[in-house]
Amino acid sequence: MSHIDIAQLRERVRAFVQAHCVALESPSHVHDPAALDAALAQLRPIARSQGLYLPQLPVAQGGLGLSWTERAEVFEEAGRSYLGPAALNCAAPDQPNMISLLRQGNAAQQARYLKPLADGAIRSCFAMTEPAPGAGSDPSMLRSTARRQGDGWMIDGHKWFITGAVGAAFCIVLAQTEEGPTQFIVDMDNPGLQLVRAIRAIDPFAIGGHGELRFTACHVTGDAVLGEVGQGFAYAQQRLEPARLAHCMRLMGRARRALEIAQGYVCERSSFGERLADLQQIQAMVADCHIDLHASRLMTQDCARRMDAGLSVKTESAMTKVFVSEALNRIADRAAQMCGAYGMSEDEPIALILRELRPFRIYDGASELHRATLGRRFLQLN
Amino acid sequence: MSHIDIAQLRERVRAFVQAHCVALESPSHVHDPAALDAALAQLRPIARSQGLYLPQLPVAQGGLGLSWTERAEVFEEAGRSYLGPAALNCAAPDQPNMISLLRQGNAAQQARYLKPLADGAIRSCFAMTEPAPGAGSDPSMLRSTARRQGDGWMIDGHKWFITGAVGAAFCIVLAQTEEGPTQFIVDMDNPGLQLVRAIRAIDPFAIGGHGELRFTACHVTGDAVLGEVGQGFAYAQQRLEPARLAHCMRLMGRARRALEIAQGYVCERSSFGERLADLQQIQAMVADCHIDLHASRLMTQDCARRMDAGLSVKTESAMTKVFVSEALNRIADRAAQMCGAYGMSEDEPIALILRELRPFRIYDGASELHRATLGRRFLQLN
Amino acid sequence: MSHIDIAQLRERVRAFVQAHCVALESPSHVHDPAALDAALAQLRPIARSQGLYLPQLPVAQGGLGLSWTERAEVFEEAGRSYLGPAALNCAAPDQPNMISLLRQGNAAQQARYLKPLADGAIRSCFAMTEPAPGAGSDPSMLRSTARRQGDGWMIDGHKWFITGAVGAAFCIVLAQTEEGPTQFIVDMDNPGLQLVRAIRAIDPFAIGGHGELRFTACHVTGDAVLGEVGQGFAYAQQRLEPARLAHCMRLMGRARRALEIAQGYVCERSSFGERLADLQQIQAMVADCHIDLHASRLMTQDCARRMDAGLSVKTESAMTKVFVSEALNRIADRAAQMCGAYGMSEDEPIALILRELRPFRIYDGASELHRATLGRRFLQLN
Amino acid sequence: MSHIDIAQLRERVRAFVQAHCVALESPSHVHDPAALDAALAQLRPIARSQGLYLPQLPVAQGGLGLSWTERAEVFEEAGRSYLGPAALNCAAPDQPNMISLLRQGNAAQQARYLKPLADGAIRSCFAMTEPAPGAGSDPSMLRSTARRQGDGWMIDGHKWFITGAVGAAFCIVLAQTEEGPTQFIVDMDNPGLQLVRAIRAIDPFAIGGHGELRFTACHVTGDAVLGEVGQGFAYAQQRLEPARLAHCMRLMGRARRALEIAQGYVCERSSFGERLADLQQIQAMVADCHIDLHASRLMTQDCARRMDAGLSVKTESAMTKVFVSEALNRIADRAAQMCGAYGMSEDEPIALILRELRPFRIYDGASELHRATLGRRFLQLN
Repeated sequence: MSHIDIAQLRERVRAFVQAHCVALESPSHVHDPAALDAALAQLRPIARSQGLYLPQLPVAQGGLGLSWTERAEVFEEAGRSYLGPAALNCAAPDQPNMISLLRQGNAAQQARYLKPLADGAIRSCFAMTEPAPGAGSDPSMLRSTARRQGDGWMIDGHKWFITGAVGAAFCIVLAQTEEGPTQFIVDMDNPGLQLVRAIRAIDPFAIGGHGELRFTACHVTGDAVLGEVGQGFAYAQQRLEPARLAHCMRLMGRARRALEIAQGYVCERSSFGERLADLQQIQAMVADCHIDLHASRLMTQDCARRMDAGLSVKTESAMTKVFVSEALNRIADRAAQMCGAYGMSEDEPIALILRELRPFRIYDGASELHRATLGRRFLQLN
Repeated sequence: MSHIDIAQLRERVRAFVQAHCVALESPSHVHDPAALDAALAQLRPIARSQGLYLPQLPVAQGGLGLSWTERAEVFEEAGRSYLGPAALNCAAPDQPNMISLLRQGNAAQQARYLKPLADGAIRSCFAMTEPAPGAGSDPSMLRSTARRQGDGWMIDGHKWFITGAVGAAFCIVLAQTEEGPTQFIVDMDNPGLQLVRAIRAIDPFAIGGHGELRFTACHVTGDAVLGEVGQGFAYAQQRLEPARLAHCMRLMGRARRALEIAQGYVCERSSFGERLADLQQIQAMVADCHIDLHASRLMTQDCARRMDAGLSVKTESAMTKVFVSEALNRIADRAAQMCGAYGMSEDEPIALILRELRPFRIYDGASELHRATLGRRFLQLN
Repeated sequence: MSHIDIAQLRERVRAFVQAHCVALESPSHVHDPAALDAALAQLRPIARSQGLYLPQLPVAQGGLGLSWTERAEVFEEAGRSYLGPAALNCAAPDQPNMISLLRQGNAAQQARYLKPLADGAIRSCFAMTEPAPGAGSDPSMLRSTARRQGDGWMIDGHKWFITGAVGAAFCIVLAQTEEGPTQFIVDMDNPGLQLVRAIRAIDPFAIGGHGELRFTACHVTGDAVLGEVGQGFAYAQQRLEPARLAHCMRLMGRARRALEIAQGYVCERSSFGERLADLQQIQAMVADCHIDLHASRLMTQDCARRMDAGLSVKTESAMTKVFVSEALNRIADRAAQMCGAYGMSEDEPIALILRELRPFRIYDGASELHRATLGRRFLQLN
Repeated sequence: MSHIDIAQLRERVRAFVQAHCVALESPSHVHDPAALDAALAQLRPIARSQGLYLPQLPVAQGGLGLSWTERAEVFEEAGRSYLGPAALNCAAPDQPNMISLLRQGNAAQQARYLKPLADGAIRSCFAMTEPAPGAGSDPSMLRSTARRQGDGWMIDGHKWFITGAVGAAFCIVLAQTEEGPTQFIVDMDNPGLQLVRAIRAIDPFAIGGHGELRFTACHVTGDAVLGEVGQGFAYAQQRLEPARLAHCMRLMGRARRALEIAQGYVCERSSFGERLADLQQIQAMVADCHIDLHASRLMTQDCARRMDAGLSVKTESAMTKVFVSEALNRIADRAAQMCGAYGMSEDEPIALILRELRPFRIYDGASELHRATLGRRFLQLN
């Protein structure tokens, strides 16, 4: 058990999110990384002063030192607003990047990159995905290369859907070397690295947007290698499982928010002489939302317990990601449906939550990919 | 049978849409009624010159005089682009407004409103929906009023989600009178009528957006009444059934477009050493899309045949609307899923088609409302 | 158009089924081919006397000479009882066997087999499916063989799930020859043919049960070949498409029967102070049943029109079979659910209809197989 | 923590069930309570000798004294065979009847009824449900009455779907008194109690079948009252929540059994040149089964932990019952589909498992009822 009263911490996160993050939400943030950064600049000092900042890092690194089981509580609560997780500095991709730097980074790298990232002075991104025919769901198709040049490396490649790229100070990039895939830390102002554009995607509030990056004879020094040369895939795998689960935790908060709004709406609004809440179809939709949320939470908590116990979550995290990503989309869809035309407008956040949640069935491995992999594993084909 | 070779007409519509409408599509049109109007100004002369304009109006009114069965073909083809139906001037709400003016309008009203609407010189809107606790799905909750004042009327009320309001020249508004609900034609520049704002909704390309309107002591002359005083609900009912089906026809084209893109994508892209098209999960998704489309088309065509034969489609149009609106959303959702991250970006229209189609499960009567009404009718409870 | 007033014929079939078939239904028929045969012996003379017998055969063969479009009406009506289609002698496998004999049989074969089959004097079966690793869904895995021996043939093989085998007078068997798969007519009392057992399957009322057959040095004369040697697969394909559709037609009647019972039940029964029919969840279930039935009927009728017009239904019949088989199962499942514990008992036929319908998602090609084939066809992979 | 090594106990239950229960299974048991009783007579001594008997009762009553969390493990394992739970004497309705007798019974009642029930010398049933318009899902519609007569009571009423009635030694019956609903223990050989018939329902292996009972001036002495007069509903509520969860535990075993069979089948069988297990649609079905099972188990375990901690499971048990009952039906349905025609036969138990599981969506409160109740509770309407 932790030294922290987690129920009380959760309550304080809830109050912070409601009072500060929800209050700052605005449709004007849609596809506007700069406006999002401005909002974060307002929110982070408050989160820090309230002792809510950096829940996932060890106390030695300035974090709250929460276990995975405890993070599950805090991340869900933070996730009620799209500004919440980043306000606490536990949003992707910075959150998993900090873990990578903590695990694979040397002291110099931690001082130069992890420290300011944890402080919230800078943002970062993780550059793995490539346009066809490069690495999408299948990392073995990696086409970006890094060749040794003197003491350093020359990186060439094309990456896209790099979440967080706009305004990031550095990226962790995966490139192929003679020894195998390798992680490099590259400063975003490296002259060999171009942010081609921000890709507009259906999710409106990605902190740092989704960038398209081009590495052209991009020179980095030897100390840019993160971890060991040739171990890039192993690191990516280690990163992915907890990253997926952290997404589940945060996005449960988003879906719950939509549900709360819908529940409020149906208790107020009448149609054909009956309050919507009194109609059985509405009641059944509300029940199904809570059942989906309950199952999602139990599956996520089960993985958190396993991770805290040092057990593998290879299979459980895949099952959980498939179920939770689909369940949260069902919840948001029902919430929208309960609110009628009102749920379609941006007057309330439901329509935007629909858009935020849709890609979760694709990012971190599409449901179809996980199903095929899980099926083969259960059938012991591999 | 018609004098027109419908298969050939459909082919010409397809060619027009591909060459002119698809070519003009742009994410920059999102929530920008003015940009959409500019695009239409380019497209309509071409459509007219190619003999594709106004498929739904009688030849006497400058239309192509198509039956409902024929419209089903043309509307679907036009609907492959969000610019298609309006380019042919068969988009909502102008298309059903023209029918209302044709049926209920007197000669002066037709000269003043129908003529320029059919010509494409102006746009219009239909103002029925009100914020809670007014008329949403349930028209009997109508709170806007019209009181006789001398020879004219004084209208007061609050309307929202009035599609097409931005840039419209007039609206047909439903207001309560002593004799019952009544339709009025009101010029949008009437000083008693204020366009409060354009409501941003999830669907990005509504021609004329979705407006919030306020009528404050809005004076209209006696000849503003459309049809008979007190018959507003009967007219609204007559309007709604064919309007729903026309939506089904047009939006089938949107879903088919998403499916075509996805089919192209999976035939090109590989993952884990296999072309996506060779994977059974993808094949099953493609099959389900075509099954959904096939059933949607047959149900729509069945209603069209009934309307052409002068039969009621009260029950059939409701069943069709529920099925088609849900089927098209499934098709677009699967198409997005097949395209992975690419399907989430606005580089291809799928993510935007997802947003266009979502409200169709709500607009024109939410699925839940139709299900309750249909259930009671089949159980002979009413 | 036919010489027959199809609406009136349908009405007469409905009256016959209700008065005679439904009245004879009994749970004691479950898995009892002899009892079913006894019931048919009672029913067929009445059907014949009422001019309802053999709807599918040409007038010259003693049938009613109905088109496929007309059969769709009559088969659905007959299908309201599990005794209906066989009472009219339009049940599988006799109905498609008669078509095979009509198309591929020579005069002697028609006299010997088609005539008594049409008369209802005998029953028959079609022996294609084999236990693993033989021909299941994939006919190319056919392992039964027929070798020329003098003027005749020697057949060896193992078949199962041969519907109608118990009490049949002959079977049409598919066996591999040097020239390719070939159809043979074999008398069931041939000493080389053993009815190993009746396989009890989930569907309780298969006329003639489901047999396991073993052919051991089974000698037949040269005139046992049905059609041309080596053309067995082509014939099987020709047979399968209309056979699937005829199943759709008949089983729609079964599902409708379950729905009728459930509708009656919810109008009578109350719970927690409300009549079940007044609850929105029930209304929505009723609506969904009718939507499923409406779409199923339109897809089936569309295929019937195409067959009557001599068009291919290769793709349409597969889409229709997948949709209809799944839709009918949904209908019966909802009907059962609406009836609560009552729907689980054999006091009313719903629980048995559930069992009759389940295999339809597997027989005639499992849904998964059709989806993969359809997907590849739409993606133009084959 | 328990004194018992639960993992090892579970392993022993698994071995017992596989070696003894599965081996005795036979389609000839379908709807044959006597044959089932004979099988149990063989199995119980073995279970007892292996120390597996009566997992749910305290050690003082001859049980294993397992907590709910531990029972979850053992019940699931026992449930792999329809003979397993009764072999261990932890099947419904005896299992919840023992709990009722333990909680509400006085010493004499426990000696006379609980002792032989725990010993397996007799069986029992619980008579609550009545035909319309009596108590079905809604216990407030209770129509059976008990009137005081001297020191005793006179019971009149009509009950049906009384699981376990055939061959039971006594029943616990719910009847209305002036003081409110009351529980009575009635010997089945009471001359005022008639077992009208065994109702055949879709589930083939109910121990003791489903009985229809008629109480006609059925006299019982004053000590027949179980618990306090007028507290019958409170007792029924207390009984229902754990009873539902015990069903979830046992039936998870049934669904898992179907899945195991299907997994074995697809690894053996090929179609169109590919092993079924290598097809993505099959892999996805397998994955979905495991996801459903995983979520079902976590929800059930969560309730078990709550019950062990003395917390209410009013809401959680309803959510769990809805999810698990539907999830298990999905698992069995997919398992059947994977096995094709083979899955439809009674050669393997899948078709029978389908039938066993279907009523679980209705018994113990239909899903629709739970959804409406849950929805209202979450909306705080009651």
